[in-house]
Amino acid sequence: MLALLDGHPWFRLGSVTASERSAGRVYEEAARWVLPTPIPEEVACMEVRATGPALTEGLLFSALDASAAGSAESEYAEQGHVVVSNARNHRMDPDVPLLVPEVNPDHLDLVARQSFGGGAIIANPNCSTIGMVLALAPLHQAFGVERVNVVSLQAISGAGMPGVASLQIVDNVIPFISGEEDKLETEPLKIFGELEDGLVTPAPLTVSAQCNRVPVVDGHTLCISVKLGRAVSAEAIIDAWDSFRGEPTALGLPSAPARPVVYVDEPDQPQPRMHRDLGSGMAVAVGRLRHCPLLDWKFVTTSHNTVRGAAGGALLCAELAVARRAVEGLRGFEGASPGP
Amino acid sequence: MLALLDGHPWFRLGSVTASERSAGRVYEEAARWVLPTPIPEEVACMEVRATGPALTEGLLFSALDASAAGSAESEYAEQGHVVVSNARNHRMDPDVPLLVPEVNPDHLDLVARQSFGGGAIIANPNCSTIGMVLALAPLHQAFGVERVNVVSLQAISGAGMPGVASLQIVDNVIPFISGEEDKLETEPLKIFGELEDGLVTPAPLTVSAQCNRVPVVDGHTLCISVKLGRAVSAEAIIDAWDSFRGEPTALGLPSAPARPVVYVDEPDQPQPRMHRDLGSGMAVAVGRLRHCPLLDWKFVTTSHNTVRGAAGGALLCAELAVARRAVEGLRGFEGASPGP
Amino acid sequence: MLALLDGHPWFRLGSVTASERSAGRVYEEAARWVLPTPIPEEVACMEVRATGPALTEGLLFSALDASAAGSAESEYAEQGHVVVSNARNHRMDPDVPLLVPEVNPDHLDLVARQSFGGGAIIANPNCSTIGMVLALAPLHQAFGVERVNVVSLQAISGAGMPGVASLQIVDNVIPFISGEEDKLETEPLKIFGELEDGLVTPAPLTVSAQCNRVPVVDGHTLCISVKLGRAVSAEAIIDAWDSFRGEPTALGLPSAPARPVVYVDEPDQPQPRMHRDLGSGMAVAVGRLRHCPLLDWKFVTTSHNTVRGAAGGALLCAELAVARRAVEGLRGFEGASPGP
Amino acid sequence: MLALLDGHPWFRLGSVTASERSAGRVYEEAARWVLPTPIPEEVACMEVRATGPALTEGLLFSALDASAAGSAESEYAEQGHVVVSNARNHRMDPDVPLLVPEVNPDHLDLVARQSFGGGAIIANPNCSTIGMVLALAPLHQAFGVERVNVVSLQAISGAGMPGVASLQIVDNVIPFISGEEDKLETEPLKIFGELEDGLVTPAPLTVSAQCNRVPVVDGHTLCISVKLGRAVSAEAIIDAWDSFRGEPTALGLPSAPARPVVYVDEPDQPQPRMHRDLGSGMAVAVGRLRHCPLLDWKFVTTSHNTVRGAAGGALLCAELAVARRAVEGLRGFEGASPGP
Repeated sequence: MLALLDGHPWFRLGSVTASERSAGRVYEEAARWVLPTPIPEEVACMEVRATGPALTEGLLFSALDASAAGSAESEYAEQGHVVVSNARNHRMDPDVPLLVPEVNPDHLDLVARQSFGGGAIIANPNCSTIGMVLALAPLHQAFGVERVNVVSLQAISGAGMPGVASLQIVDNVIPFISGEEDKLETEPLKIFGELEDGLVTPAPLTVSAQCNRVPVVDGHTLCISVKLGRAVSAEAIIDAWDSFRGEPTALGLPSAPARPVVYVDEPDQPQPRMHRDLGSGMAVAVGRLRHCPLLDWKFVTTSHNTVRGAAGGALLCAELAVARRAVEGLRGFEGASPGP
Repeated sequence: MLALLDGHPWFRLGSVTASERSAGRVYEEAARWVLPTPIPEEVACMEVRATGPALTEGLLFSALDASAAGSAESEYAEQGHVVVSNARNHRMDPDVPLLVPEVNPDHLDLVARQSFGGGAIIANPNCSTIGMVLALAPLHQAFGVERVNVVSLQAISGAGMPGVASLQIVDNVIPFISGEEDKLETEPLKIFGELEDGLVTPAPLTVSAQCNRVPVVDGHTLCISVKLGRAVSAEAIIDAWDSFRGEPTALGLPSAPARPVVYVDEPDQPQPRMHRDLGSGMAVAVGRLRHCPLLDWKFVTTSHNTVRGAAGGALLCAELAVARRAVEGLRGFEGASPGP
Repeated sequence: MLALLDGHPWFRLGSVTASERSAGRVYEEAARWVLPTPIPEEVACMEVRATGPALTEGLLFSALDASAAGSAESEYAEQGHVVVSNARNHRMDPDVPLLVPEVNPDHLDLVARQSFGGGAIIANPNCSTIGMVLALAPLHQAFGVERVNVVSLQAISGAGMPGVASLQIVDNVIPFISGEEDKLETEPLKIFGELEDGLVTPAPLTVSAQCNRVPVVDGHTLCISVKLGRAVSAEAIIDAWDSFRGEPTALGLPSAPARPVVYVDEPDQPQPRMHRDLGSGMAVAVGRLRHCPLLDWKFVTTSHNTVRGAAGGALLCAELAVARRAVEGLRGFEGASPGP
Repeated sequence: MLALLDGHPWFRLGSVTASERSAGRVYEEAARWVLPTPIPEEVACMEVRATGPALTEGLLFSALDASAAGSAESEYAEQGHVVVSNARNHRMDPDVPLLVPEVNPDHLDLVARQSFGGGAIIANPNCSTIGMVLALAPLHQAFGVERVNVVSLQAISGAGMPGVASLQIVDNVIPFISGEEDKLETEPLKIFGELEDGLVTPAPLTVSAQCNRVPVVDGHTLCISVKLGRAVSAEAIIDAWDSFRGEPTALGLPSAPARPVVYVDEPDQPQPRMHRDLGSGMAVAVGRLRHCPLLDWKFVTTSHNTVRGAAGGALLCAELAVARRAVEGLRGFEGASPGP
């Protein structure tokens, strides 16, 4: 997130907060930086504040652990902050938009139903959900998606640090990620749901998910089968993917990929090492479209779990919120007119 | 195969054959040995013969490449040899048993329909098929299996040497294995088929498969969903797996695992590195049984692709053929009564 | 250790101890078992005791963390127990033998100098030290070793659980292991030291070490250069390795490998995956002997870090102590005469 | 190379050549592209020519296999082309500069001694040599380097495609790379050699090398020990690295890194995954400087083997040749004055 914010045209980092244990230390000493790019200079020397007390900044990105995120995010919203969160806690709250900007930008209107004093909470979905929903959205819009079977092969960076012990995953597969299958089976229903009268009615969609951890650094791969609302040709499906754009591209949001979904026409692709950085890590690669003897079609997707699936996705949510003026009087953006 | 034959109580290695290029050389110079166990001493100095000309041994194990196996295996059978093959060429021939000894031992009777002069061909299924069929067999026998969705995470040893380039698979997943999905979708139908009047009627089963290569040395992992013939409890399913034995165990075949299928009751298991050597690599580990919102049940299996899925499986086929006296006058076993 | 003790001809597991947190729980619930072989049945249900209070068993194997091992091991020795330790705390104590049974079995006599009340402490060296010392010992005995440069490529299992985070080591090398270089530079001097009048004079040997962690599950690989006491031929060196045996083999100790050092004559070997299980994991593979332009000779070794380098090494130390009757009145072995 | 040339400010790709087998095909069909970045568009549709017949371009980059490079490069030079080669064939030719632009730019004068008709051959050193020489150069210039011990942990991309089989390197180390140790022991002597009267006198330097392949995608790591010409402090060494620049930076060559050598002050760095892209892959990261009990100092380096160690290094050589006007009348650069 810090790497993506560095040089962002709209947003400038004001503060970094962490638990009491790290508060008061300089960022580069408090954090364990594991990215190949160096710590942005102005962040390195920033003093880490404690999470909780009021901040002056209007927009907060939360990567809090689920054990702390629930109440901390609500409190910040009460204090008038707009919180864009990667935590799972508020994702299924009826008045919190579970936002994939290309897919359900209108769900941002839910924010008006939130009863926080001026602030708001916007939820970024699970890292696997985002990749799947982006690949399904063009099909859902064009043909309707009724049933989905998905088996994931997920990267180790999805578990953060220290995350998965190397002794568990080198030369191995772990066919389990706590809570992940449930998220993949429920979040898409809300994201594809209809917003009417301030309420999201879940889409009539059934998803069955099996999740695996594999020895890949970055990039989640999904093997998906779908039953569509009507019979279509492979060409129509590929065309739906290739022509899909969405509001972020239309609005020219800084983090929007030129093409959110890219069909890759090679027999053995997409692959995580080859395609995770597509569209600066914000696009989803799809390939291997073929008939399924059980449902209708099968295909494979790959997307970057820590960019599109986490920090980059949250950034795009914030950009959309600002561009849509979803939040009245967002501090620092009151009279601003960002965008091209 | 050579490592497994070393010290086998029934069989003794007589000859090793290869292409003209290797013929005439001593085995340890002709072969690229990559196993952790050393080359069995009596094999190391054995002179490699050319594949083709007649041999004195009655039983042949074929690991020929598919480009050569078709005709070579037929010719050896014509010459009176019993050929147990890992190649795909004859698997779907109507009169060739596609044999998983615990599952369809009666299919060995097909051999009587073969028109070779005294010899015979017995086919060992694909390495992924074997693991899946063993896990499905107890369910099929007890409840009927109607529909199967399977996504595989397959080890690199399945591609042999040189196989997959390291530059393609380290920190990566390849969502494609040539011909593999077709094998997983067709072979189980023959294996589960009914033998009547010398003909196998394919089982009325639909399988949809997606195959992936992952950076694991040995051990194929399968994420399986099934629709069964009737509603059953999880306990009944686990009991079907745990109580499954089959003819090889009953006959005390040397390579038969004590329990062909073992249910592992940990939330994040089975795992290939932990379970591939179960039952000396001849058993299948199953775990994570849970409901499936699309079909009925989901679970995960792991089995050793080069032992159970190849050499060990072929050896067990040969042992069953001998014990069942499936082949009249098999040279070297004419009057023999192997077994305990 | 538990896996190696299972079925041991001399020793039978009596108790398992751990911190207060685990005490009182059944072993299989208290421990995180990560080996491919299952937990030995009689251990699985054993109640874990707290480390500290007296035990009835005479022989204790300590795999305590260095933060606890120092005092706990002394206290157990005071209580009359013989403690064979994998911890680093007492390794350099003047009266504690730092034991590689094939190399310095006479150092066991140091135990007589220990002032514990009947008990004793015997130290197993660092996992990398053991592999290096075994490879150097035949050269040291035959020609004298004066200077050693060693660069290690160490397996992740050496760091235990959780150990190295997968996010740090997949597609990566970590050129640092805390404290490891110091151990490799100092422990060999004591092991090769002369025991006279109850004192070990360190060998006049200089070692320079650089240690790396690599994405290998088991097996430490060492790139070694040596300066010998005199000019010798490659044949003489290989002969020294191949003919090396030592006291454990002579005494027929249960865990002694038939050949502690095996020279592998292939241009690209030894390799950890291929050779770590040599001699049931108790032997060291050596290869690639060639001239060094700076010192005299260069070569590569591989050995199993958790078997020979830890549990198996400690077991061999205990077997030697029993066979040599190094400890008077060791409980359970008072009148025993183990061995062939 | 093609990815680096895409958008290069001085050079524009004119032709691509390959063996007869590929000639006549469009590039994207003839090549197996494995990079995460897509094939540059104008290259994708370019028709591949046969290597051999004359070309119109003045500057050629050769990545030919050593079996073909020797004569093909000479022939192109005879025809008047300037050939910058990654092949090993001409590296040790007395009149061919073995060029690391920051280290021995004056060696370009050797080109004048070449007897080709207007053309020339410039050799890019081995991928490991470049990283080592860049790290040693500041020490050599400031203090003199007399003896070097180096153990490499090299990435799989160094072997190209198909290169190392995955079955050989996953969960493994291969302690051997054909010809590599010899290159590391001889090439630095020529690179650090003095050019006088058109002859390079090799530097009086002794290097001992051991080379290993490890399961890392990109980035060679070297564990180096050095004996210097005089006693110096750690500060002086680090200062020599940090202040090192060289002619490419001074000339503002497009591919020159701002700082060719960067000292990383963390106890467990440099690491290949973290530092291989330093300076767009053109810089060398150095760390862990400490005393060596055998020589004087020990340290670790990491550099990108396919960028700095191959394509990027060759490009920098070509840029230097152009900027220095090393080659009279280089076609396409006759009157040009590239650079800022």
